[in-house]
Amino acid sequence: MPTATEQKIIDAAVRLFASQGYDATSVQEIVKAAEVTKGALYHYFRSKDDLLFEIYRLLITAQSADLDRIIALGLPAADTVREIMRSLVVSTAERVDETSVFFRELHRLGQERMADFRAERRRYHETFLAVVEKGQADGEFSSAVPADTVVLVAVGVVNQLPTWFRPDGQKSPARLADEIADFVLAGLRT
Amino acid sequence: MPTATEQKIIDAAVRLFASQGYDATSVQEIVKAAEVTKGALYHYFRSKDDLLFEIYRLLITAQSADLDRIIALGLPAADTVREIMRSLVVSTAERVDETSVFFRELHRLGQERMADFRAERRRYHETFLAVVEKGQADGEFSSAVPADTVVLVAVGVVNQLPTWFRPDGQKSPARLADEIADFVLAGLRT
Repeated sequence: MPTATEQKIIDAAVRLFASQGYDATSVQEIVKAAEVTKGALYHYFRSKDDLLFEIYRLLITAQSADLDRIIALGLPAADTVREIMRSLVVSTAERVDETSVFFRELHRLGQERMADFRAERRRYHETFLAVVEKGQADGEFSSAVPADTVVLVAVGVVNQLPTWFRPDGQKSPARLADEIADFVLAGLRT
Repeated sequence: MPTATEQKIIDAAVRLFASQGYDATSVQEIVKAAEVTKGALYHYFRSKDDLLFEIYRLLITAQSADLDRIIALGLPAADTVREIMRSLVVSTAERVDETSVFFRELHRLGQERMADFRAERRRYHETFLAVVEKGQADGEFSSAVPADTVVLVAVGVVNQLPTWFRPDGQKSPARLADEIADFVLAGLRT
């Protein structure tokens, strides 16, 4: 969990990166908007690049912890898929700015950071894939479409959400999550 | 259709934008990589911004024309959805670099360009939506999930494709398109 100061810096950086772009935002502007000293910022983050990565790391860490919690419940495959979709849709909808900034600036991460990012995403993806594969092996899900394609479809709509989701839109994140889960589960029905 | 010179400029710009970023690429570098004169570049494109937009406009224009052709065939709704998914997956997979560069730099487009882009995407989206709605109204598709969510899922996986598709991967674009279409159609089955 980030400290209150760390969170203030992250929130200010997200707002500035989202509204005026990463390049156009200086550390000085972030410090001013967050109402902290430059010393405080450099205490938590070595660089602007570090801050960008942290913005996303917090999101994916929360999603991964949520995934582990869901798996540990040991529910039937369909319920597990529904809970995973709810967790992904709701957490992404709540942090639309963070996610869009991160994906836009992803190519700026250095090799080490990119490797960390890919490893964490891969772990998430493979855990989800294993749920679908087990459901197919147990006959709870249809095997008509390979599990990897099912997961790409299910995760794709979530990763695209920042481009179309509006917090003031007609459907709440919870309702959207249920509709998306319904559709994915309908596709898996035997 | 772009002229041969225009295409050379676009190809060079896409390669440079994809490998080193839009900001870090100068018009001079594009001219050099495309082996054309600066005068030729400015004959076709007013600015780097103009070139960025054109990269994407060519893709979406081709996709829209393909959509009109598919609709004109007057096929049953399921066949129409399959053809649309094939068109989207195959055309996006063939232009992975163009699509990722464009989405990454989208926020740089001026208001007028952004409005054009949104209008063209909306037209595509609404045409696809009408196909699903008609299939639901005619009872050919299940109405369990609202058509707008179905289209967001179907289009989401295509828009995310540039982040995971590898031209040297195990599945061809045509095979991927069929698997994705199978899954979307399974979700719509009555």
